[in-house]
Amino acid sequence: MSKNTFGNALKITLFGESHGDMIGAVVDGLTPGVTVDAAVIDHQLSLRRPQGGISTSRREKDAWQIVSGVFEGKTTGTPLCLLIPNADTHSRDYMPGIARPGHADYTAQCKYHGYQDYRGGGHFSGRITAALVAVGGILLPALQQRGIEIGTHIACCAGIDDVPLDAAYMGEETVLREQLRALNTQGFPVLDAAAGERMRAAIETARAEGDSVGGVLESAIVGLPAGLGEPWFDSLESQLAHALFSIPAVKGVSFGEGFAISALRGREANDAFRMQGERVVTETNHNGGINGGISNGMPVTFRCAVKPTPSIYIEQPTVDYYNQKEETVVGKGRHDPCIVHRARVVVDSMSAIVVADALLQRYGNDALRAE
Amino acid sequence: MSKNTFGNALKITLFGESHGDMIGAVVDGLTPGVTVDAAVIDHQLSLRRPQGGISTSRREKDAWQIVSGVFEGKTTGTPLCLLIPNADTHSRDYMPGIARPGHADYTAQCKYHGYQDYRGGGHFSGRITAALVAVGGILLPALQQRGIEIGTHIACCAGIDDVPLDAAYMGEETVLREQLRALNTQGFPVLDAAAGERMRAAIETARAEGDSVGGVLESAIVGLPAGLGEPWFDSLESQLAHALFSIPAVKGVSFGEGFAISALRGREANDAFRMQGERVVTETNHNGGINGGISNGMPVTFRCAVKPTPSIYIEQPTVDYYNQKEETVVGKGRHDPCIVHRARVVVDSMSAIVVADALLQRYGNDALRAE
Amino acid sequence: MSKNTFGNALKITLFGESHGDMIGAVVDGLTPGVTVDAAVIDHQLSLRRPQGGISTSRREKDAWQIVSGVFEGKTTGTPLCLLIPNADTHSRDYMPGIARPGHADYTAQCKYHGYQDYRGGGHFSGRITAALVAVGGILLPALQQRGIEIGTHIACCAGIDDVPLDAAYMGEETVLREQLRALNTQGFPVLDAAAGERMRAAIETARAEGDSVGGVLESAIVGLPAGLGEPWFDSLESQLAHALFSIPAVKGVSFGEGFAISALRGREANDAFRMQGERVVTETNHNGGINGGISNGMPVTFRCAVKPTPSIYIEQPTVDYYNQKEETVVGKGRHDPCIVHRARVVVDSMSAIVVADALLQRYGNDALRAE
Amino acid sequence: MSKNTFGNALKITLFGESHGDMIGAVVDGLTPGVTVDAAVIDHQLSLRRPQGGISTSRREKDAWQIVSGVFEGKTTGTPLCLLIPNADTHSRDYMPGIARPGHADYTAQCKYHGYQDYRGGGHFSGRITAALVAVGGILLPALQQRGIEIGTHIACCAGIDDVPLDAAYMGEETVLREQLRALNTQGFPVLDAAAGERMRAAIETARAEGDSVGGVLESAIVGLPAGLGEPWFDSLESQLAHALFSIPAVKGVSFGEGFAISALRGREANDAFRMQGERVVTETNHNGGINGGISNGMPVTFRCAVKPTPSIYIEQPTVDYYNQKEETVVGKGRHDPCIVHRARVVVDSMSAIVVADALLQRYGNDALRAE
Repeated sequence: MSKNTFGNALKITLFGESHGDMIGAVVDGLTPGVTVDAAVIDHQLSLRRPQGGISTSRREKDAWQIVSGVFEGKTTGTPLCLLIPNADTHSRDYMPGIARPGHADYTAQCKYHGYQDYRGGGHFSGRITAALVAVGGILLPALQQRGIEIGTHIACCAGIDDVPLDAAYMGEETVLREQLRALNTQGFPVLDAAAGERMRAAIETARAEGDSVGGVLESAIVGLPAGLGEPWFDSLESQLAHALFSIPAVKGVSFGEGFAISALRGREANDAFRMQGERVVTETNHNGGINGGISNGMPVTFRCAVKPTPSIYIEQPTVDYYNQKEETVVGKGRHDPCIVHRARVVVDSMSAIVVADALLQRYGNDALRAE
Repeated sequence: MSKNTFGNALKITLFGESHGDMIGAVVDGLTPGVTVDAAVIDHQLSLRRPQGGISTSRREKDAWQIVSGVFEGKTTGTPLCLLIPNADTHSRDYMPGIARPGHADYTAQCKYHGYQDYRGGGHFSGRITAALVAVGGILLPALQQRGIEIGTHIACCAGIDDVPLDAAYMGEETVLREQLRALNTQGFPVLDAAAGERMRAAIETARAEGDSVGGVLESAIVGLPAGLGEPWFDSLESQLAHALFSIPAVKGVSFGEGFAISALRGREANDAFRMQGERVVTETNHNGGINGGISNGMPVTFRCAVKPTPSIYIEQPTVDYYNQKEETVVGKGRHDPCIVHRARVVVDSMSAIVVADALLQRYGNDALRAE
Repeated sequence: MSKNTFGNALKITLFGESHGDMIGAVVDGLTPGVTVDAAVIDHQLSLRRPQGGISTSRREKDAWQIVSGVFEGKTTGTPLCLLIPNADTHSRDYMPGIARPGHADYTAQCKYHGYQDYRGGGHFSGRITAALVAVGGILLPALQQRGIEIGTHIACCAGIDDVPLDAAYMGEETVLREQLRALNTQGFPVLDAAAGERMRAAIETARAEGDSVGGVLESAIVGLPAGLGEPWFDSLESQLAHALFSIPAVKGVSFGEGFAISALRGREANDAFRMQGERVVTETNHNGGINGGISNGMPVTFRCAVKPTPSIYIEQPTVDYYNQKEETVVGKGRHDPCIVHRARVVVDSMSAIVVADALLQRYGNDALRAE
Repeated sequence: MSKNTFGNALKITLFGESHGDMIGAVVDGLTPGVTVDAAVIDHQLSLRRPQGGISTSRREKDAWQIVSGVFEGKTTGTPLCLLIPNADTHSRDYMPGIARPGHADYTAQCKYHGYQDYRGGGHFSGRITAALVAVGGILLPALQQRGIEIGTHIACCAGIDDVPLDAAYMGEETVLREQLRALNTQGFPVLDAAAGERMRAAIETARAEGDSVGGVLESAIVGLPAGLGEPWFDSLESQLAHALFSIPAVKGVSFGEGFAISALRGREANDAFRMQGERVVTETNHNGGINGGISNGMPVTFRCAVKPTPSIYIEQPTVDYYNQKEETVVGKGRHDPCIVHRARVVVDSMSAIVVADALLQRYGNDALRAE
């Protein structure tokens, strides 16, 4: 694992630039015989697609194509390459040399010495996540067949809170599964519809001001077997955080109670074990389903802090790094005033990748096939 | 990279159990010619050692020994193996089969099927971090010679706040370097001594009640060149978080403003660029020195949430997983009522490992040698 | 590194099936600013293309396309994805369930449980090497700009010997570079044209009999700096052999004198060092430019044994693994009576990948850019 | 995998120098519950130990110690660290700056810039293989419990041939298993005792002349399930060759008929499939049990060419690379006139590592436990 490839038994390699010919991903190590359902991939991509009023006006139809690794509708077990052509690009909106604050323009220059494709953020663009989402559309149903469900809601957006995913912290699996399934049908996933309306309104306000907002995503993985992860370095938290922090705009990741756990006493933070029939469960789930870096069979819960989109239509001071002089910049092009709701399905795809990899490491190459 | 080995160009492999013969680490990929200074290693280990009143009474002298990879006081460039014998162990305090809440006993059972060394937490014990800290004692001076300094303070403990590391967020490098150096001499590192006293008192109170407390560590890396990290998967945030989340008790990691950034507007969160002589800098540092996953030359800042130590002397309900029945457990043995101050030097060692690896990837095998 | 991804600092991921939509490769870790010359890629692909009389009649125009990682004719440093559509496929010639002797049909069944794309050998097909060859067309000129040249001749085919690449073993660099350049223009690369004619005639004889022949390729890498490779596991020989043994039909790899060195005495096998101006060189080069797994600055030389193509038009006993019964099979479809000459450019591409990776590990991310 | 760490699901890290304090290995990814039998480890080390008359007079008792990863006689599943102290060292026999021909002295200087431990070959010494052999002593019995047996004989030494391991090429498994077991009891493993006597005499003659000899080892792995290995890059041949070429003095590796297969016709080289009861087998085994990079269930066979030991007591021209001038050198210290017989058990250990890794990748983390 390193650079643009992630995973151990399952490996994902990403490629593409925002305004290049195509973006895509190669997935290696997949169990042979996994069903590839175009409708699910399309649905996942639809959850990532811009939404009128609260999103960019760039419209990509995401006409994905799998060119290898699938035969007669099922994975072969050899590398699967998925391609998505870029169609709706406006490259003239981008000026090389001007570092947009909060963006990767300047750091790309430092790393790539001016050879980077600067158009639309190039390889740093959120556009690349479309390939990840399509991969999620293959992995998520395979996990679901093994009883593992994944979902995310907008816990907070523009300072407005959704109700928390309490079932995950109380180990109410049946309720939790229903909540996750409901969220997976929503383009703007919230548990409390009224809170969602207020969030949308706040996004539109920010947009009207040329500004942007951020938020917090809260996720749960239910049905994970106990015993996944490693004591050191490859703890399940390490692997999930590694994947999640590569999503553009994520600046914080926490598990279970997260930062709030640091203010508890030990007797409050510990999750007491008890028997539920023949199964060992915990009374509470402050530790987010992970003890010592390894899954304990309870729902794995985590939160991602998403910063406000850096692309804004307000003049900001910056530098022209070609000419080493100060400049100002004001956003051009088409941008999202908020990406929190769109990032949700990227988070779920990353979770699916990490979980699938952990299963394949633990149970071997055929671990993803339905019994 | 995977399992108990971490890193790309620099690889660290950890081994050992709390009550086994020895713990240790192998470090591979080190630049040849790096000075190994026993006094620095001893100092770093002293920062991790238990402190009277607020720590466990286990006393390990940490008589480390390097058995390979160092010749005439300098690294050879071949794998360095560092060993630390365990001396002060009380194994009879541990009962197999009883899952201590908040600990890895049960998850270890799920992963290792009863073959794990259960004594003192075995391979999951914080004891193993002594080897990481000793490795930090080799890497940190080598980084310092290249102008890179790393340090951490207790931003919050038992709900009591230290003053923030403001210099890091305002890019005042000279002030920040002085603060980090001062912190690196303190066994209980705070910027505000009075806050530190209140924290210590709170730890002693928790101890008296048989309970434990947690906290938040805030770190800075200053002097990092711009251009380290990868756009996807191996973002600098991903690599740091991967390492940090494998430290026992860390349940949250955030960069720059962290979770608070999610409540800002874009125009507040963006860090405007400006020229400082010939150097590009940012006015503010809300993004913690990282844009698009790549260092921008400003101080890298991050926070780790540390949960309260799970070992407490209060009766808790749990299960006996050998006999599949419910039980109660009350802490025996010697435990820390707080590990936040001791974890600090582990965090710095992890940072040093990630930064050294990033430099070696970027500049090649000789990147750690002083000019 | 693992599965279908190879390399450390430079990573190559292969995908595609013989009769699928496209084959291709993703190359990650490339130095930004490397020139991509379509004419060189086309030339390299032409060396791999079937030749009338001694090759298959499948005709692929290899209309490659780079969809990411190249901007304005130079590498960006982000992942480069190269695609080659499959055009001329005759899938009906392949019967699932019948294991062609010497082929991967049966082992694919054991690994992929019947989900593999069996048409034309699927992912095991030599067709996939076209992507490797195209990648070689990017790396080889970059290496040449750093003074590193790579080439291969047919040391033996159908039992007929070419003259050996003596200049490589005597350290005559100027002569060797000329020989390699000349070989790189030949579709059937030999030093002795008359021997080449006899080899071609032997291939045509085998073809007429429905049979096939093999051979030995001898390669040299000249201009490699001393100091590349690792003492254990990642010796330069290990890395080259790893790559070379994944070329279909390669069943042996040896360095320097190869198996013949085992019959020498120590005083014969040792290569005496001497000064050549300020440079340390060896008098002879029995060790093929590698001591202790690390390059010594002399030409790196190696040989690959290529087995006769398993596809023959002669009836052979085999099994039907679907029905668990014995069967006979006779070759259908279009096949090569010899692939030795076509495999040559695959060997050179593999060498280029390993050498480029070693340089990037040793000298860092910008190691492939011309000064 | 890279540098001094090898493997995917099973990872081996080597460390140590010939005249340092200790050598050793860390093994990560082992199935928990594997029995560790000191007598087997001792036996394996005894096969590597120098033999009077035909070996060095350095006498190491190989007092190995396992300091982690084993509890109550069984592997825990966490990293196992095995240490072997160096005892019998004569460091004054080594002069820094003088490059011994055929050795790594000069290449170590190029890579490590003079910081390497030059004494006794340092990290390049065959001494390090003792740790690999001890690891083999853990893995080989675990594989044997799953029906997988591994063994090697001296196919050729000093130009004298043993009889070939015919049973491996004819698929006579019962005979082959008996032969391998017999070989594993011999310090100088040959099938034809008379040939062995002639080889020993030839080694003694070379020794008397201050010279050295090489040879060829032929190995077989029997009982391997079909379906291990990957189509590209991580073919079973690639993985074995990678490991084998990191053994000092190995200059060639071939599978099945090896280089001789290149002179066969396709109809001779192909191994016809047939049914043996319900099992698919091949009539012959020219391909050494591997098709398309993947095991086919037949014995895996391979040969390693071992060069004559470079340490000889004959004056040789060389250079002093400290002073950039020509010199002569004559062997001092205690050296082997032949290491072929000692290298045998290193080859078997490497095979065990590769096979165990392949099983763990294929079948998951518990693959090495006896049913």
